[in-house]
Amino acid sequence: MKLCEIINVGTELLLGEILNRDAQILCDRLAAMGIPVQRTSTVGDNPGRLREDFLQALGRSDIVILTGGLGPTADDLTKEVIAEALGLPLAEDAAQMAHIEGYFRRRGLSLVESNRKQALVPAGCTVLYNENGTAPGCFIRVGEKAVALLPGPPRELAPMLEQSLLPLLAPFGDGVIVSHYVRTAGIGESRMAELAGPLLDMQNPTVAPYAKEGEAYLRVSAHGATREAAEALCAPVIEQLRGALGNHVYAIDKELAQVVLDLLTEQGKTLALAESCTGGGIAARLTECPGASKAFLCSFVTYSNEAKIAMLGVSRDTLEKHGAVSAETAREMARGARERSGADLAASVTGIAGPGAEGTDKPAGLIYLAATDGARMLEEKLETARADRGYNRVAAAKCAMALVKALLS
Amino acid sequence: MKLCEIINVGTELLLGEILNRDAQILCDRLAAMGIPVQRTSTVGDNPGRLREDFLQALGRSDIVILTGGLGPTADDLTKEVIAEALGLPLAEDAAQMAHIEGYFRRRGLSLVESNRKQALVPAGCTVLYNENGTAPGCFIRVGEKAVALLPGPPRELAPMLEQSLLPLLAPFGDGVIVSHYVRTAGIGESRMAELAGPLLDMQNPTVAPYAKEGEAYLRVSAHGATREAAEALCAPVIEQLRGALGNHVYAIDKELAQVVLDLLTEQGKTLALAESCTGGGIAARLTECPGASKAFLCSFVTYSNEAKIAMLGVSRDTLEKHGAVSAETAREMARGARERSGADLAASVTGIAGPGAEGTDKPAGLIYLAATDGARMLEEKLETARADRGYNRVAAAKCAMALVKALLS
Repeated sequence: MKLCEIINVGTELLLGEILNRDAQILCDRLAAMGIPVQRTSTVGDNPGRLREDFLQALGRSDIVILTGGLGPTADDLTKEVIAEALGLPLAEDAAQMAHIEGYFRRRGLSLVESNRKQALVPAGCTVLYNENGTAPGCFIRVGEKAVALLPGPPRELAPMLEQSLLPLLAPFGDGVIVSHYVRTAGIGESRMAELAGPLLDMQNPTVAPYAKEGEAYLRVSAHGATREAAEALCAPVIEQLRGALGNHVYAIDKELAQVVLDLLTEQGKTLALAESCTGGGIAARLTECPGASKAFLCSFVTYSNEAKIAMLGVSRDTLEKHGAVSAETAREMARGARERSGADLAASVTGIAGPGAEGTDKPAGLIYLAATDGARMLEEKLETARADRGYNRVAAAKCAMALVKALLS
Repeated sequence: MKLCEIINVGTELLLGEILNRDAQILCDRLAAMGIPVQRTSTVGDNPGRLREDFLQALGRSDIVILTGGLGPTADDLTKEVIAEALGLPLAEDAAQMAHIEGYFRRRGLSLVESNRKQALVPAGCTVLYNENGTAPGCFIRVGEKAVALLPGPPRELAPMLEQSLLPLLAPFGDGVIVSHYVRTAGIGESRMAELAGPLLDMQNPTVAPYAKEGEAYLRVSAHGATREAAEALCAPVIEQLRGALGNHVYAIDKELAQVVLDLLTEQGKTLALAESCTGGGIAARLTECPGASKAFLCSFVTYSNEAKIAMLGVSRDTLEKHGAVSAETAREMARGARERSGADLAASVTGIAGPGAEGTDKPAGLIYLAATDGARMLEEKLETARADRGYNRVAAAKCAMALVKALLS
């Protein structure tokens, strides 16, 4: 099996200014084509250290992919350093120059001098044209090995990877790796692992336990000559895990938002939301899924008491007597959202996201939820005991979706 | 200056299953205390490779921080590998065992055998207790150097870093690094860099151009003996950049959502939103900021035509004649949101997020926006010519916030 390393270049990464999405995109796509990534590393815009790390990586791996540092400004040095380390001169690529000129013309922008530098590529490389920017990528054969340079911004890197680089790397792939995710609810990572038992010791597929955003899941990953062969290895193990984990399994692969949307679509039902502390976050999660508009009608994001009264018909009396963060308010929000939208189902959330108590005497992480289909009203109270605003908002969003799922199951 | 390296451990990172947030958190906090991170790398749950990379890092750096692989399951090996590489035995820490037992008791969960492994720590280390999980961190002195082990989940790592590790690392810090961000709108990275001119060649502070999510910005970063000294180096350069970039600068440091909320709060005004293709994304961005409830009243997330009619009073005639994605609908949405919420200002978005045309003959990335304060109506039409749903939603959210800012300026 060929070994691959990734080097992400950029001082902004080492200063913690941006999140390294490129490594995740590359690792995911390369794993799927049987090119396992063994190491990724990040170095700054420092020619000496980049050269050293690149030559070390090329010495021990078959494929080295570098990202970033291809921009027009003076600190963008990746192309220059790699070309020099490989003993290749830089030469202007006429097609790339035309591409840059066209890119600026189409956007009505004027070309600045530094963009001309972007038409230079290492002699003899395959140029990877950039449909979403001005920096070209490069693919360079070095004996039996391969070196690739990709632009740093994920929205430039991802399409270039898909359309241009992966086809060039296909001959390096050895079979296919297929992964599936057994997603659970209402169970921690340790208990999940205990229930999975000896299945965690398998070799092909491997079964690995993870926890993320309050959710525990198992990855089942198989290597086979073809996709079909790898799938055939995964399938019986997934069934065994379903047996071992029972009702805790809410889906294979699919995220909760997609599970809820699919159930709604299958049953021809529509959903409305009433969100307070999640502030539109549940709607945003659902509408990240293309086609959400088939089942998702609307969300009443009612941050203030006045909005809860005017938009949802929550009674002033309830707000005064029980407070905005209460089971009573959650119920009235859900009922109001359903009635005012004409949706079949509605779910509501009201709580203290934190970090502070937001002028109440209630603790951060206290969240009330309700969901109704007109006949039934399901309710839930969360007490995360955390001041973490982001965590509380995600926990509330997941819980609301789980309530909707329960109404549909 | 002491050099620091980070090693993130986890096959799930190399398979692209999770995004590496830990590296960003560590780099950001360490830079702020004058401990520059020179390299980060990611290795899988492979004892041999982890040992090799760890010893290489310890050979060339003063501080090595490892994250991940401290969990209860069998593939969590970091502690064992590092203790062995340093020749330290593992011993049960009584306080840590009591901490784990208390953690499970408080949550009403039963302790499983694998959790006991988490009470083992390298002999002689300083144990970093974990308030948000069961895996302890460790701080180990190795001669003049330091090694730290932190848990992988960001919500466990971040508080442990802040409360326990950073104070232990303080003696390694050399002065302070301060960074500020000059944020721009309506200008690309190349043009911004051209306007900044020779300021990009400075040494202390350094000025570096970046582009992210359709926004170009400059980082101004200074190193000084104290925070005050570093700030004094940054201030005049920020003023020079303001002069060079003029109206393109919309804020120093602050993100657009915070700028909008602060302007609203200062002017004692309130905001309502009417969101279609952003699906709650603008509300979610605004309400990520603590204290958003002072100025943000509500968002009408109207995904369907019926919701636009019922919740916002958009006329059926307008929707039939011009379509949901039109300047006319955007205007009626903004007007309806303002009137029905009682807010001082309202902004609206309606468009094709993509990737498909969503049953219309309009292209993905065609987005209409409007914002009104009752007296004025500002409008904007975006044509991103992209099928990228995520990009289009972010672009629309930023544009809507910029319109609100324009009404307030």
